[in-house]
This record gives sequence, C-alpha cells and structure tokens, in this order.
Amino acid sequence: MKFSSSLLVAASVATLATAAGSTSKPKNYIFFLPDGYGPASETFARDFANYKSNNTNMLPVDELAIGYVRTFATDTLVTDSAAAATAYACGKKTYNGAIGVDDNYKPLGTILEAAKLDGFMTGLVVTSRITHASPAGFATHTYFRDLESDIADQLVGYTHPLGRVVDVMMGGGRCFFLPQSDEESCREDDVDLWSIAHDKYNWTMTTEREKFDELDNGLAEDIPLPFAFIPNLDHMMYEVDRESSLEPSLTEMAITTLNLFDRLTKDSDKGFFLFIEASRIDHAGHAHDPIGHVHDILEYNRAMQAIVQWINDGHSDTALLSGADHECGGLTMGVPDYAWYPEVLDVARNTAGIYAQQFETFNETANATETDKMKYLKEQIFEAYGIKNATKEEIEGYFTADSAEIYLGEVLSARAGINWSTLGHTAVDITLFGHGINTHNMIGSWENGEVGQFMANQLGLNVANVTKILQANESFVQAIGPDAEGKKLIKRYRLQHDHEHLHEGAFHKH
Amino acid sequence: MKFSSSLLVAASVATLATAAGSTSKPKNYIFFLPDGYGPASETFARDFANYKSNNTNMLPVDELAIGYVRTFATDTLVTDSAAAATAYACGKKTYNGAIGVDDNYKPLGTILEAAKLDGFMTGLVVTSRITHASPAGFATHTYFRDLESDIADQLVGYTHPLGRVVDVMMGGGRCFFLPQSDEESCREDDVDLWSIAHDKYNWTMTTEREKFDELDNGLAEDIPLPFAFIPNLDHMMYEVDRESSLEPSLTEMAITTLNLFDRLTKDSDKGFFLFIEASRIDHAGHAHDPIGHVHDILEYNRAMQAIVQWINDGHSDTALLSGADHECGGLTMGVPDYAWYPEVLDVARNTAGIYAQQFETFNETANATETDKMKYLKEQIFEAYGIKNATKEEIEGYFTADSAEIYLGEVLSARAGINWSTLGHTAVDITLFGHGINTHNMIGSWENGEVGQFMANQLGLNVANVTKILQANESFVQAIGPDAEGKKLIKRYRLQHDHEHLHEGAFHKH
Repeated sequence: MKFSSSLLVAASVATLATAAGSTSKPKNYIFFLPDGYGPASETFARDFANYKSNNTNMLPVDELAIGYVRTFATDTLVTDSAAAATAYACGKKTYNGAIGVDDNYKPLGTILEAAKLDGFMTGLVVTSRITHASPAGFATHTYFRDLESDIADQLVGYTHPLGRVVDVMMGGGRCFFLPQSDEESCREDDVDLWSIAHDKYNWTMTTEREKFDELDNGLAEDIPLPFAFIPNLDHMMYEVDRESSLEPSLTEMAITTLNLFDRLTKDSDKGFFLFIEASRIDHAGHAHDPIGHVHDILEYNRAMQAIVQWINDGHSDTALLSGADHECGGLTMGVPDYAWYPEVLDVARNTAGIYAQQFETFNETANATETDKMKYLKEQIFEAYGIKNATKEEIEGYFTADSAEIYLGEVLSARAGINWSTLGHTAVDITLFGHGINTHNMIGSWENGEVGQFMANQLGLNVANVTKILQANESFVQAIGPDAEGKKLIKRYRLQHDHEHLHEGAFHKH
Repeated sequence: MKFSSSLLVAASVATLATAAGSTSKPKNYIFFLPDGYGPASETFARDFANYKSNNTNMLPVDELAIGYVRTFATDTLVTDSAAAATAYACGKKTYNGAIGVDDNYKPLGTILEAAKLDGFMTGLVVTSRITHASPAGFATHTYFRDLESDIADQLVGYTHPLGRVVDVMMGGGRCFFLPQSDEESCREDDVDLWSIAHDKYNWTMTTEREKFDELDNGLAEDIPLPFAFIPNLDHMMYEVDRESSLEPSLTEMAITTLNLFDRLTKDSDKGFFLFIEASRIDHAGHAHDPIGHVHDILEYNRAMQAIVQWINDGHSDTALLSGADHECGGLTMGVPDYAWYPEVLDVARNTAGIYAQQFETFNETANATETDKMKYLKEQIFEAYGIKNATKEEIEGYFTADSAEIYLGEVLSARAGINWSTLGHTAVDITLFGHGINTHNMIGSWENGEVGQFMANQLGLNVANVTKILQANESFVQAIGPDAEGKKLIKRYRLQHDHEHLHEGAFHKH
C-alpha cells in the first residue's frame, strides 16, 4: 500500500499561514513538555475536573490544541523520554536511551545550547530529578540516560565542553550532586558537585523554598545567577502529595522563572529559552496510579494557563509550544465496556505510593495484631484511597502483589473503569499545544524533530553549528560514547524493551 | 478544582480566523465519519503503511488534522455510535442508543433533513448496514438504534413525516428491506419495503455492481433517482475481504456519488450534503481484529485523499469535515513494554472472521481426522493469519474461546505488541480533519454537537426549524417514542453498558 506523497496540506491551513504570514519572530521561547501525557490522559483529566465542578468545560490546554506529534525513535516505534527529548532539543530522532547524541553516539547541539551561545538566557524547570532524561536531553550529552552523575556534571558546566549553558535550574535530584561519602548520594565517585558548582561556577545552590521565594522580590542586579533550586534528593513530590512549605508548585516555579528572565533580558535584544516539564504525569502512568496522574495533569493545565496569561499580559514577544514525549501506561477509559466513573478518583488525598508507605509503617508497629492490620489496611488505606468496601479478594491481593503501590492503583483504576495496558509507554501520537507568535504555523501533524527545528528557527538559532563545535571536540566525543561496558548497558536497556520473542508465541488469554 | 472559564483561544488561531475570515460559504458539504477511529488507530495504521513502504510518511489524513472532538453522551462519558451520530447530525448531545431524538425521545431535525427541505441533494454512503446507527442518525428518528426495520421504513420515505429525505444511499443491510416471509429477511413484519420503495417512492433499488458502475456514465437526465445500491444483506465486506466484482470500494462509492451530485446540482444554487462512513473500522475494533482494522483505516485514508483531490480539482465550493464518533476497542501499541511490530500484520489476506469460518467448514468435513484438523488449524488458519509457529497452548485456546474470531485477533495482536482493553468503546477525544472553505474555523477542540452546528451554519440551514416541524407532528412523536416494552429495551441496553457494581469491587489481577 503506497500513498502518493504529495503534500496535500489542508487548503485552509495553507491559506491561513500565508494570510497571517508575519516576518516578526518571538524574542523568547518556552517549550513545555508534559511527560507521558497522551490523548486519553487529556480526556481523563477533563472528565474528572468536570465531575468535580459539575459542568462540561474544556481544560485550559484544550483551548491551545493546534496539532499532533509523531514520536517514534530510530530503533523502536515506541519512544522513551531520552530519545524524544533529544528529538525536540536537537531536531533529530535518535535511539531510546540517547541523551543529546545521534545513532552513532555523536553529540548533537541542542536548542538550549545554541540559545546560550547566542546570548540568550536559558532555564530548565522540572518536577523530576533535574538529571532525568527530558531536561538532560536539552543541555547535556551522553550515550545513556542512566548516567545521571555525568549529566549533573555537565549541567553545572563542570564537564560540559561549552562551559555552563544553563542559567536557572529547578527540580529534584540533589543526590547526584553529592559525593558517595555522603549517605544521601546517588553517585559512585567522590565528586562533591554541589560545592564545585558553587565554588568554581558561581552557582547559587539551594534547597530552600525561602531562597526560591526571594527570586520574586529581588531586583535584577540582586539575583544570584546562575541559580539552582534543588530541594529534593529524588524527584519533586507529586502535586497531590506536595508540601507547599517545602516545594513550590510547577506553576510557581514556571512563572517565577519567567518573571526573572523577563527582568534580566528586557533591555537586551536577546531573550530566553525556557524548558519546563510536568515530569511526573509519566511517573504516575508507569505506576498505574490515576490519582498522581490526574493531579499532575491538572497542575500542568494550571501552569499552561498561567503562562498563556503571562504572555497575553504584556509579553507578546514570547511564544509557547507544548507537547508530550509519548503516552504512558496505555491508558484507556471504558473498561469494562462503557464504564468510566471519575467520581471514584475524588476520594484519595495522596498518591498510591504514600498510602502504601503508610501501611508499611503501621505494619511495622510491634503491638498491632493481624486483625488490626487488616482493619487498618481496609479502612485507612483502601477506603482512604477511594476503594470503598474492599473485598476480601482485593485485600488479599495486596500481600502477593509485586508492588503494593501499583496494586492499589490498579484496583482503584478498575473501580473507575480505567485500564492500563503496559508499565511502559505506547506509540500513539501526542497532542501539540501552542500559543503566541507564529505558533499557528505548527497547526497539523509533525515529527517530534520538526518541532525542535521550528523553535530553533523561530529564535534564529544555528543548532547545526553547535553540533559542529561539539563533534570537533574529540576528547568529549570520546568521553560521552560507550566503552565495552557501556555497550552492554545499552544492550541490556534495549533487551528490556525488546520482545521479538513474541513472534514465536507467548499469548495468554486474560 | 475549578478552572477559569475564560475563552483563552490561542491568539494565533483567533488571529488567523479573522485574517482569513471570508464571508463566502461552501455550496456543498461532506461529513465523513470513520467509525471507531481513535488517535491510536491512526498511529497504528501509519506505522503499518510505513513498514510496508519502508519509509516514514504521513497518512493522507495526517495532513488534514485540524483539531479534536469531545464525544461524551448525556448519560455516559463513553458514547455509542447512535448518540454520537445524533450529536453530529442534530447539533445536540443525547443518550446512548438514541437515533435523531433528544433525552426526552423527541425528534431532532438533522442537517441532512434541513438540507433536503432547502433544496439540496442528499446522500448516505456507508459500509455498514444502511440502517445502522451512524447513517440512521442523519436521516431518521427513533428512541432505539436496534429498531432497524423502522429506520429502513423512514429511509425510503415510507414512514418519514417529511417524506423521502435521501436521494442516494449506498451500503449493506438489504435484509431490513425484505418481508419476514423471505428467508433472508431481518424484519418481524410482512412489509416488502424493497418493493414499496420502488413502486411508491420511485427508488431504483439495486444489488448489482453493474448498475452502480452505470452511475459514472449516465448523463444527468438518465440517472434514475432516488438511487439505492444495497448489494449485501448485512454489512458490506471489510475492505481486505471485499470481492471487487460484487462490491465497489468505499472510495469508489464516495467519488461516484460526488460526481453524480456534481452533475445534478451544477446549474442550481443549491448543492448537496453527503454523509460518508467508513463504518467497519469500528467493527474490527469490537472484534479485536487488527487486520480488518488496519485495512479499513487505509481505505478510509484513500477515500479521504480522493475526496481532497476531487475538491482541489475544480470543486472548491465543497467543504469536507471528518471525525470519528468515538474510539473502539481501547487500542494501544507497546504491550508488553515498548513492543510494537507492525510486520506481524503483513501476512493475513483476510479478516479473522473469514479464517474462523474457513476452519468451521474444514472441521465439518466428514473424513478429516483430529490430526488433520489440528494440522489444518495450525497451517491454514493460524499461519495464514500471521501467527507463526503457533504454540500448543495458543492452538488449544482456540477451542475454548467464546469467539474464535476474537481469539484469533487477540493472539495475533499479542504477537504484534497490540492490546485491546475492551469489547466496547473508550472515552478518548477523537481527531477532527478538514479540507476546503472555512474549515480552518474548526481548528481546536470541539464538542461533537458543535461540529454539526458549524456545518449546518455553513450551508445556511435552519435545523431548529426542522425540529419544530417534526415535534409538531404528534403521531410521529408518539410512534418513535418508547412504550413500556421499548423502555425495557433501552434499560437493557443501558445495563449492558452500566457497571456501577464496579464501585463495590470486582478486581481481578491479570
């Protein structure tokens, strides 16, 4: 089956693009990545929000939809976050696991690096570890996403061949900045990156919400740049679990950074490039936890709405594009046939992981009897999470489940009429949202790499030139490529994702 | 959680709509409904087509994407085809099962009826039974979709209070036109609708492909209108199973009808409204058969491409919108984690139903031994359908499955990395495609009813007036509403779709 490859762009769209075709371009660009946010996630969260408010409103992002994105990686039809981030950042597809490198492990310049070299301000604001695949793909280079110590080293400028390319970073992942002698460290070396960043690269490294809050008050000249706000060792908390005295919301981090950049660049002809990620929509999808999923999606929507408001409110030189890297969890609503009850999700006040932890704590109390424990599990865990009148079978399943967290999520999902088909991602196209100058040019269907190319072009950046600089640096190319051990790492990662044996039959009717 | 309900339409889109805002409107409208075509179905078919042609092309419809549609019905968040067709046709949401009636069983005027009353030509071209929910929702009225005899009666004009409102219909479902004395009839009365249509309403009623082909040759004055081409008792064949000597493709039916309408209306100031449906994308989803699903999707794409070509080729006064009624089957690709192998689908030359039938026939041959049968099943059925080296377990499962057809589909799907989560529909928004005059005004996110309102407005039609006429007809209102038995019918249908008991716990870990 072969379709003609003629470019039958809808006449309407083509006409519009020409009619409104403007030569003016944005000074600033925001790329906002809702990780693991597939089309079903949007309907899912909208139906929940509308249940809560008893209406049939749109979500804020519904009003910004302009197209969709084709996300496959070079080695599989189902991408991971690393390959997708690299495609968005570098304008070129690569293999799953790759951070800012191509299929041959050669570094690719990113839009953020090109922006920095051209005098823009740059930022990474995320709710995962700041060293996680998505932010990493915008500012660092390594053959494998799990090398988060190396990624942290590059993020602060320590081992980045272009020097420091990031001005502001916010997110979790402090454990990758601590030497292994520190019991909270995730590193396997003695590098005290937190101190190096501060001492050698002038970073303000802080874990304190107060320091973050001060950003909103300081005058431009008072702002201690570069600025890293990394309150958590691991990821930031899910929105529904967040303690606001310790962590700002993603919306707060995004708007604070926008205001900061605005103050710092308003007298310059160069603006900023800001990468924002609602990282944990994805994590809740992997965990099959509808509670974490829905509340992080709603926070993504609040952040998008706040940014649109910010752009409309005197910042029309800023453009916003937003698209996920991939769907996560294989979410569908209507399982069994035609069932979908968002009200079931309106009981829980925390993610499944918190409830599972809470039970673990109770379970370890010395004087609790088995009866106490079962009662506690039923009433304080299942019931509190939204699983009304848990059956004996449902409760017993808790103790044999591989993961108590995932088990709780799946039981609640089944009650709500939600199904998760995989612990990984799925191949479905994701929706592209846009607001502001020239984003109408992105109406329609695009490869993820094309989205990155468009943004770089809009800022007048030469990403190819950054690639040239990076690839000319032989010792860097050497350092970020895999040795024999590294090739094994990648192979193992791919094998986890590889199921060619399916062809030979492994069907179990469920 | 409450979002501000401000209408934050993307500035770009709003600007464009104004910039290109034209007062000219289309003379003709085509609404093309790919039944059961969710976002994942599009990625699925594209990946398959690209596997076949070894490239990374877009599908034809990818190039026409302009937005998406929110599809919930008034009684559930997961719509059926009846409620969705009514929303598109009448501009108003209703309950699952409703055909052209509102929540109170009162008739709602449809865009097709309004077009007919205003002097337009009208057509229904589908691959399901012509009496099935989607075409029925555009031209008939009844409280329950399964009353297909009543729907047939209205389609030909026999019991329609507006008289005959359809000029051309093509599709399956002849059994509903035959009196119960005919062994091929699906009716429960003695009405010989086929003869009545011909004798009293001047329909050319034909089952012959030759008669269909003649439509392309005749002069306008020779065309024997109204014209019904209904070759099959039940649905038309799936595209991959189609015998072209008996049945034209959906593309052929669509283009032939367009040319016919074009010739008949070219000297009139009134054009036509044509409803086209790729009906069986949905049926294959219900059957979990990736083969029927992918080939009917590709045929939908060919038909869309041909229509766009037709519009571009001298028919710029015709506008096209296309959107599904809902997703079907809960399709996801990447199950287990990251597996998705479209090549597995490149073996079968028929749908699963045909292979299951084929085995049934062999199974009934008198002198075949058990060994013969198992060998035949493995080699001529499983292998031919694409299930290489079927395991003993896979083959044994065939005999205990509720449905051999669905079982085959599920085994093949598992080999390909595809999951189907439900035998019904799911809630995810569907994609809206458009081409031609003013369709850019539909960029963004819409309720299904808003799509119908837009089309009626574009043709300058007064659907509300048709509603008034219909509702003023008391005997008709009476006839199409439910009696006590009818209310039971609806209740039963809703119960099939109702799983409130989930709240009380029915989780089985799979």
